[in-house]
Amino acid sequence: MASARPSGEETLIARYFKPLATEPGAFNLVDDAAILKTHGEDVVVTTDAIVEGVHFLPDDPPDTIARKALRVNLSDLAAKGAHPAGFVLTLALRSVDDAWLTAFARGLGSDAGLFGCPLLGGDTVSTPGPLMISITAFGRVPEGRMVHRSGAKPGDRVVVTGTIGDATLGLDVLKDGPVAAALADDAAARAALVGRYRVPQPRNALANALRDHASAAMDVSDGLAGDLAKLCAASLVSAAIDAMSIPISATGRKLLASGATNIEAIVSGGDDYEILCTISEDCYESFAREANRAGVAVTTIGTVIAGNNSPRFLDAQGRELTLPHLSYSHF
Amino acid sequence: MASARPSGEETLIARYFKPLATEPGAFNLVDDAAILKTHGEDVVVTTDAIVEGVHFLPDDPPDTIARKALRVNLSDLAAKGAHPAGFVLTLALRSVDDAWLTAFARGLGSDAGLFGCPLLGGDTVSTPGPLMISITAFGRVPEGRMVHRSGAKPGDRVVVTGTIGDATLGLDVLKDGPVAAALADDAAARAALVGRYRVPQPRNALANALRDHASAAMDVSDGLAGDLAKLCAASLVSAAIDAMSIPISATGRKLLASGATNIEAIVSGGDDYEILCTISEDCYESFAREANRAGVAVTTIGTVIAGNNSPRFLDAQGRELTLPHLSYSHF
Repeated sequence: MASARPSGEETLIARYFKPLATEPGAFNLVDDAAILKTHGEDVVVTTDAIVEGVHFLPDDPPDTIARKALRVNLSDLAAKGAHPAGFVLTLALRSVDDAWLTAFARGLGSDAGLFGCPLLGGDTVSTPGPLMISITAFGRVPEGRMVHRSGAKPGDRVVVTGTIGDATLGLDVLKDGPVAAALADDAAARAALVGRYRVPQPRNALANALRDHASAAMDVSDGLAGDLAKLCAASLVSAAIDAMSIPISATGRKLLASGATNIEAIVSGGDDYEILCTISEDCYESFAREANRAGVAVTTIGTVIAGNNSPRFLDAQGRELTLPHLSYSHF
Repeated sequence: MASARPSGEETLIARYFKPLATEPGAFNLVDDAAILKTHGEDVVVTTDAIVEGVHFLPDDPPDTIARKALRVNLSDLAAKGAHPAGFVLTLALRSVDDAWLTAFARGLGSDAGLFGCPLLGGDTVSTPGPLMISITAFGRVPEGRMVHRSGAKPGDRVVVTGTIGDATLGLDVLKDGPVAAALADDAAARAALVGRYRVPQPRNALANALRDHASAAMDVSDGLAGDLAKLCAASLVSAAIDAMSIPISATGRKLLASGATNIEAIVSGGDDYEILCTISEDCYESFAREANRAGVAVTTIGTVIAGNNSPRFLDAQGRELTLPHLSYSHF
């Protein structure tokens, strides 16, 4: 009569993921479910999956894959004005590779700690296909205070955080495209762009400012132009954007000047994970002050206008940009 | 200047899944996140994924795939004594097949209605690999009342619901194994077993009885023997099981008698999605009465004993069964 021997799956969970399950409600990952405590606040739920070859590349480092999987969800919580409360993980693996899993769990644990978003539970399954990581993340907001996509009003400023386009330029570097060629002599610039693609910087520090001041908000994941169109559609408004005011990094501006990229690619590329929001003129000064205190750069790029047309992006001459592909769509 | 045209992904979500998002907190699936209202109760969170070729077969009907994906999660909520509150869905698809998606969404919507578990949100991604469905489901329990794996005490009865083994026999039918051959002349029996594999019957009607009377509970997903070993390990106890008292369907008994299967396959096969629980002698009568009222058959199969060895399964002669593979493990 042998002692109870745990299965390979249980050993994997105990070895790599139990150390991340620091919340009492995770029950050390030995139960079938977790408990999320709510303290009378609303629970904000968001879910985002990333697939090998679609959202990340097969030879991306495992710690950055883990961090991206969590951060794309943290970015949604930030945009909704919610503070992270925890997450559950579904990991579909072809096989068990100890070095890969060690690095993956290290990246995940590091970000879970950094953003105060502990692992609550999960499911590990085998797949013959590409690696896939699906995360459902939970946040807390005071009752009724989630920031929606649907509150933008004509006259509001259209505002974005950080810089737009670096991640799609980073993907071009990884794919050895024109950007890689243009930056052949600048390894630091290439690495910075790749870093933006692999490890987004979710703007969770801005959650309170958004909750207090934004009329609408979402994160920019599928491209600024397309995501703004979604926000406008949900709010039953349109927008006029001054393309010249879109915040672009120094490397991005250099690549635009050299012709290695163009503004259309910048505004329709994805993976920015910046916040796009609308702020009434009355609220803007307070919002900008709080954003500054939170260490997040914010830039006004245009104005919400009445109407149900696609947002217009105007160049320096006031001509409208032609954007054949508004944003990334899976289908 | 064209009107804002939704992407293929938005059209897919609006067409197939928006009709399922009946809860106000789902915001018609046009926001980045959902709100789960809690009414001061604890939120129970569980997540389970199913992968084509691993948990279901490529030519399984799409409506049964959807129902299985939801039901394996509902089964976890039932075992924890929780009532369903909603779920989020991650769907990884190779392509958009309207007939497939129509049937999938119909099956999902039908079960969401049947079990009172509305769709709250989700993510649809493309994959070059096998179809995968990951669901995170939420339940509500009064504060501090979730049923754990860890409360079994020596002397408690070991109890299971329904019958054990039908799903694994159904999988053998689909794989054209010895069970298919033994039932070659009995299409109805084959269909019943296949039905148990494709569409589990989660025991949500038993949630209150479990919460009020069970010392420990979990659902049987990876095989009775292995899952009982997990429950015993979490509770720091062992168990003695009378293999002859394990509830087996008439077809299962016939297949055992003919040698087309054996008891080892029955107790280590997976996909039962019955409840395994432990009940103190004092509570058993009330529990059995409530189970009867809920229309769920329950059977005592053994006793919790002190110790840290694997649970023992004894045959009619009191000999211990040899179970080389305790249960299904992905790795």
